[in-house]
Amino acid sequence: MQLLKTNNIKLTIEYNGLPYSGWQSQKNEKTIQSEIEKAIFKFCGHQTVVQGAGRTDAGVHALGQCANFFIDKKYSEYQIVNGLNFHLGSEKIRIVSAQIVEEKFDSRFSAKIKTYRYQIVNRTSPSVLLSDFSLHIRPELNVDIMQDAIMKLIGKYDFSSFRARDCQAKNPIRTLEDAEIKRNNQIIHISFSAKSFLYQQIRIMAGTLIEVGLNKIKPQDIPKIIDSRNRSLAGPTAPARGLTLVKIEY
Amino acid sequence: MQLLKTNNIKLTIEYNGLPYSGWQSQKNEKTIQSEIEKAIFKFCGHQTVVQGAGRTDAGVHALGQCANFFIDKKYSEYQIVNGLNFHLGSEKIRIVSAQIVEEKFDSRFSAKIKTYRYQIVNRTSPSVLLSDFSLHIRPELNVDIMQDAIMKLIGKYDFSSFRARDCQAKNPIRTLEDAEIKRNNQIIHISFSAKSFLYQQIRIMAGTLIEVGLNKIKPQDIPKIIDSRNRSLAGPTAPARGLTLVKIEY
Repeated sequence: MQLLKTNNIKLTIEYNGLPYSGWQSQKNEKTIQSEIEKAIFKFCGHQTVVQGAGRTDAGVHALGQCANFFIDKKYSEYQIVNGLNFHLGSEKIRIVSAQIVEEKFDSRFSAKIKTYRYQIVNRTSPSVLLSDFSLHIRPELNVDIMQDAIMKLIGKYDFSSFRARDCQAKNPIRTLEDAEIKRNNQIIHISFSAKSFLYQQIRIMAGTLIEVGLNKIKPQDIPKIIDSRNRSLAGPTAPARGLTLVKIEY
Repeated sequence: MQLLKTNNIKLTIEYNGLPYSGWQSQKNEKTIQSEIEKAIFKFCGHQTVVQGAGRTDAGVHALGQCANFFIDKKYSEYQIVNGLNFHLGSEKIRIVSAQIVEEKFDSRFSAKIKTYRYQIVNRTSPSVLLSDFSLHIRPELNVDIMQDAIMKLIGKYDFSSFRARDCQAKNPIRTLEDAEIKRNNQIIHISFSAKSFLYQQIRIMAGTLIEVGLNKIKPQDIPKIIDSRNRSLAGPTAPARGLTLVKIEY
């Protein structure tokens, strides 16, 4: 099927990641990308590929994922939002907005800053209110020393120590533009902002910071871990639970 | 049954309000208070009354509700938290902490400041991620004029215009210590802090502020609505959905 690229549509998307095997289409798996592609097909009869800005892992939520796709029919932004949401039905996915953008716009490569946030409930009893949206850690985390450690991650580095072993990126150099940690009583938020991340970089950085908060890794070890380019020196990969793709800036 | 008041226990409690008919015990209704009283009975064999600081309506959540009760047995704070959480089982209620306090402590009357927060999702499509924790309002709310209006509610006033018709408080004078409204993209938070509130005062203040944001009530009308002591001049009672009892300060 020849596709006339008359309209490049940018979507801003919210989803609850728990019922899905992540963003990216995979055979025999229910994914967010494939559900949106099905909704587009039902809406306008196009079999199209929806390119996502962040390929979130299974269980990761999004408040402001972005994606784009091409269709050769003309629709208003209002028609697209309402049409796709109608066809998404009871899926835990909602199109927040649609925008007709220039042809060269690419949701993934045009992104300037992607911001992800971990929510941790740090107390004895797990949360009943936030359980689907937080990671539960029982021992008290020392946020002050985590703060020291997070500052040492900000910057342009070879993040080989902080990527999954099956990460396929050729270049392991990334720039962590901003990162912060905040405690509000028993709730801790850790956020990371960068143009792009290596595969599972956020979950490994979070897992390492948690080890720092538990006094298992020292903040001054962070530069050594970076320099080593050795995945086994960083902390474990934190669970997907509690991670949300907050926003993509272009 | 004579109860020896040897131990006054203060609980900090989190709950998801959706499955319950509010905090307060009512015949033939599943309430948060009655589920906690059942858990205490299973834990230590005491039939006791748990006095809550805020009597939240059906559907209202709590991150930091406080309550107290008396028992004549000695338990550590750790035993109380774990014992009650064990007996609460799959209820959407969790004891966050327990504290043995002096006999005169009363969770309701000793409270200095109670803070409640509304979360509003202000956009075309309802949220799939926040739906249980937010009120969905489609038309765009003007937060700047809501900000003007909220400032006019802060202070000590006769809040008769802002209480439910069946409110039983003898004195309608309350002091709203603080209130604020913040927008972060499509999510709006409105919070209210006071020593105590009239019945449904928060929901009526929120409903009135929403009318302001929709240009149906002007900020400069707020003092007139207060002066009138006439419930029918204020806005509608906002739904319970999206309201959370955030914390109680003593």
